[in-house]
Amino acid sequence: MSDPAKARPPHHRAEIRVRYEETDQGGVVYHANHFRYFEVGRTELLRSLGATYRDLEAAGTRLVVIEATARYLGPARYDDVLAVETTLREARGATLVFDYAIRIAGGDGPAVVEGSTTLACLGAQGRPKRLPEPLRGIVDRLAPR
Amino acid sequence: MSDPAKARPPHHRAEIRVRYEETDQGGVVYHANHFRYFEVGRTELLRSLGATYRDLEAAGTRLVVIEATARYLGPARYDDVLAVETTLREARGATLVFDYAIRIAGGDGPAVVEGSTTLACLGAQGRPKRLPEPLRGIVDRLAPR
Amino acid sequence: MSDPAKARPPHHRAEIRVRYEETDQGGVVYHANHFRYFEVGRTELLRSLGATYRDLEAAGTRLVVIEATARYLGPARYDDVLAVETTLREARGATLVFDYAIRIAGGDGPAVVEGSTTLACLGAQGRPKRLPEPLRGIVDRLAPR
Amino acid sequence: MSDPAKARPPHHRAEIRVRYEETDQGGVVYHANHFRYFEVGRTELLRSLGATYRDLEAAGTRLVVIEATARYLGPARYDDVLAVETTLREARGATLVFDYAIRIAGGDGPAVVEGSTTLACLGAQGRPKRLPEPLRGIVDRLAPR
Repeated sequence: MSDPAKARPPHHRAEIRVRYEETDQGGVVYHANHFRYFEVGRTELLRSLGATYRDLEAAGTRLVVIEATARYLGPARYDDVLAVETTLREARGATLVFDYAIRIAGGDGPAVVEGSTTLACLGAQGRPKRLPEPLRGIVDRLAPR
Repeated sequence: MSDPAKARPPHHRAEIRVRYEETDQGGVVYHANHFRYFEVGRTELLRSLGATYRDLEAAGTRLVVIEATARYLGPARYDDVLAVETTLREARGATLVFDYAIRIAGGDGPAVVEGSTTLACLGAQGRPKRLPEPLRGIVDRLAPR
Repeated sequence: MSDPAKARPPHHRAEIRVRYEETDQGGVVYHANHFRYFEVGRTELLRSLGATYRDLEAAGTRLVVIEATARYLGPARYDDVLAVETTLREARGATLVFDYAIRIAGGDGPAVVEGSTTLACLGAQGRPKRLPEPLRGIVDRLAPR
Repeated sequence: MSDPAKARPPHHRAEIRVRYEETDQGGVVYHANHFRYFEVGRTELLRSLGATYRDLEAAGTRLVVIEATARYLGPARYDDVLAVETTLREARGATLVFDYAIRIAGGDGPAVVEGSTTLACLGAQGRPKRLPEPLRGIVDRLAPR
């Protein structure tokens, strides 16, 4: 029987208003800036679960992006409020995989960007290490394995 | 028999010195900034082939990133000179695919980042269109089909 | 007799959480990024007064920074929530001057950055023009002359 | 009698090609990005004098911007090659003042941006300290006092 606590992976929705300098002369958000929005998304997802990346780093743990991918499906424009939906898809060993969908907030439209990032958990010397508490406990309770 | 003119896809090597603001407090280049280096790479590859993106855009053509991916294999640091090696892997219809490898210049080491981007060619109304000249001629002569 | 409606120049307080990529390897917010926070400050001040820069620009008016200055008094760090306090100090002809103070939100401390920017109002051909409505009415009612 | 060795303050000219993401939807370089070009300018000026900021920082010295100002006189556009002319105007105690003028390279035109930054020399604990060697020697020989 499925464990309902694990049925829904941790998910969070953050809102970001597009700043002028995040656009380029094409009149839309510069494509690489969406990876910055992804980072806001996963940071706020972790915060909603009780773990701040600031504290993790201060305690000697770094989460480093080792793979990043995005598909651009439509334009995001200056002053748009974007909804960044972040899901922790997978957690195993020293690795976390997050999925993202960015939509124009307040609308019902399809995603303008979808993507994912894989992060490795590194210790002080830059060596992979298992997720520390409280992140480990959070992930053990919540993430699909 | 293979056509030697098509045997080697167009390739270019650009050098970029890492700026202070491109680092983050982790002490390395912020991961999303490598997509900016990729853009320098493909811009200089096109320039070396006789086409500037500036002119393309002024003539009503836009090349828009529709997919981007990167794998981070090692750190790039402040003041490092990076060699961005760009290859036009594929060109068909309204789409170009570029591959990238970023190394620390002057060394013999492995890539610190590898990635690729897919760009769509759009006309004035944002509709896909075939590559215009001189880009089409360049691609027809050089790119693997 | 002084007009109390003009006694207090328009003022707004916006909150911004520092993103990871806004830091540099010195461990604090890269100095130029505070000018981006200033822009968020004046954008939100205008919005609070009933004018969005997006609409102004769509109607053919641009507000272009012609002078910018900042004094850095203390560090702003990753994940800090910053309070950007923006004041419209002066408005005359085609020019607006905004003052800014950035503090760590939730604290009582001194500003970490103070600065100002002067913006010129430009029309479609890039020529200076008088502020258009609704901005003109807002400024006439509120700003010290 | 004036010392000719001190008659001309240290000066350097660096070239930078404007990247696409450095523009905004107004079609010109986003104003805050010129402070990044200023940093390239002073970094290359120091390098030309025999001091790299990378080495200074590795040896425990930081040069922190405590004041920055810019006047925007004309547009810089995508793919323009900019000439950043940097002058070390003043050096006293723990403080360096650099002046900048940015022109479109290859032209004879006026500056598009002029500005200056004041940097404080800080030691390991973030306390002001006198300039270390080799920077001190360089400044003693060259800068107007």
